[in-house]
Amino acid sequence: MFEYKTVIRLHEADAAGIMFFANYFRLVHDAFEVFMETNGLGPGKILREREYILPLVHASMDYKSSLYPGDRVTVRSLVKNTKNSSFILSHEILKSIGDDKSEIVAIGETVHVSVERLAGKKISLPEEIKVILSRM
Amino acid sequence: MFEYKTVIRLHEADAAGIMFFANYFRLVHDAFEVFMETNGLGPGKILREREYILPLVHASMDYKSSLYPGDRVTVRSLVKNTKNSSFILSHEILKSIGDDKSEIVAIGETVHVSVERLAGKKISLPEEIKVILSRM
Amino acid sequence: MFEYKTVIRLHEADAAGIMFFANYFRLVHDAFEVFMETNGLGPGKILREREYILPLVHASMDYKSSLYPGDRVTVRSLVKNTKNSSFILSHEILKSIGDDKSEIVAIGETVHVSVERLAGKKISLPEEIKVILSRM
Amino acid sequence: MFEYKTVIRLHEADAAGIMFFANYFRLVHDAFEVFMETNGLGPGKILREREYILPLVHASMDYKSSLYPGDRVTVRSLVKNTKNSSFILSHEILKSIGDDKSEIVAIGETVHVSVERLAGKKISLPEEIKVILSRM
Repeated sequence: MFEYKTVIRLHEADAAGIMFFANYFRLVHDAFEVFMETNGLGPGKILREREYILPLVHASMDYKSSLYPGDRVTVRSLVKNTKNSSFILSHEILKSIGDDKSEIVAIGETVHVSVERLAGKKISLPEEIKVILSRM
Repeated sequence: MFEYKTVIRLHEADAAGIMFFANYFRLVHDAFEVFMETNGLGPGKILREREYILPLVHASMDYKSSLYPGDRVTVRSLVKNTKNSSFILSHEILKSIGDDKSEIVAIGETVHVSVERLAGKKISLPEEIKVILSRM
Repeated sequence: MFEYKTVIRLHEADAAGIMFFANYFRLVHDAFEVFMETNGLGPGKILREREYILPLVHASMDYKSSLYPGDRVTVRSLVKNTKNSSFILSHEILKSIGDDKSEIVAIGETVHVSVERLAGKKISLPEEIKVILSRM
Repeated sequence: MFEYKTVIRLHEADAAGIMFFANYFRLVHDAFEVFMETNGLGPGKILREREYILPLVHASMDYKSSLYPGDRVTVRSLVKNTKNSSFILSHEILKSIGDDKSEIVAIGETVHVSVERLAGKKISLPEEIKVILSRM
């Protein structure tokens, strides 16, 4: 499991005062980017130095309660499954409610596939990605 | 069915050159907002003049192919189901590929629930919302 | 002068209920993108088929009043100045207040420079850009 | 002076591969939000517990060089000036270039004004804001 901690910012909420639902997806992708960077292979490096990318073929989120600007959140991500050319991450988003307590505010899933950047063709998951995912 | 047409903008793509996956969710919500405005009850009006909001409890998207800045897209939304206090919208995102042809690039679903804004409690779908949804 | 019309969306506002200040910049860039597309050379096409890009070296905005979700706005952009390798656009953002009336809600300026994409070096404004800008 | 450190994320870049110019403004506002939170009065708390807001009346940015996903940046903000009902922040955005070295990639300014939330009228800067700003 990988944990990523951050704070909800003003611009992530919408006019209803709560975090806009699409931004939860940004949040779990941020967590994945930080995980990859922690393992020496952030998205910036992949784009500069590799010939594959890891686009999503599926994303889903169940929302349990709202997030507000200033809320301290933790994203907990883990690899649910790895196939030949794809992997599934599951994500829990937790909100701090004081005294080291937290509650789950959303549960999501993202499915990433490895694709040759120029040809746009699906390829087997690069070995380095498998190794890094095994550390999550 | 409601159709919403727009063009992918530069800032919606990420450094991989393709629309960032979370922005597809923004797109289908834009379609829903335009549908509501067309029926005289846009989100701005709901926030100003009503005591309920329509937050999401679920969102999902399957991505078939990429979108690039300048791509002309159509979102086709329809009401899949209506329950006492919630409704499910299904969305197809199509990309124009010339000569009035288009291909599906993503299929998504959003589940909205009606909630009393101040109390945060689930309520029955307001009658006016049921009426508007019946026109989609 | 080029006019671009759009409607403020829910996610562009922040938790204070009003459009987040950074999103006004997105709005004026959207206007510029639409202008370029109208002239057959949108950002997508430039990225795919040209060897230059037009990044910004300056942007500024004066905010007169707030924008809310559902507000109908018009961006009026014009070329203020063209130099060897850069051009200045000035932008007015107007909000419809009914009966064909509108009021200015923000005034901004963006300065774009032409840069060779790979080398990152400043180059003279491409002739095609000069021609298109002369039509604004 | 207040320092805020963060890393550029994939979705902040656009299809040209570099951070979209409007997102630099988001970045400096994030820095301001973190500064306020550090002083016990984040935007979330202001929205919930105060009767004023601090909208912007001006924002500007000069861009010196590009930012890419994965870049580690520092925002250095300081109070340039305080007037009766407004204050000016100046911001430097620096990018780490290894070995504790960094270079300035952008310089910006934001002008905030204190406004009664409901009436929308300009008011004198609240004493607590003056106190907090004096600590920047």
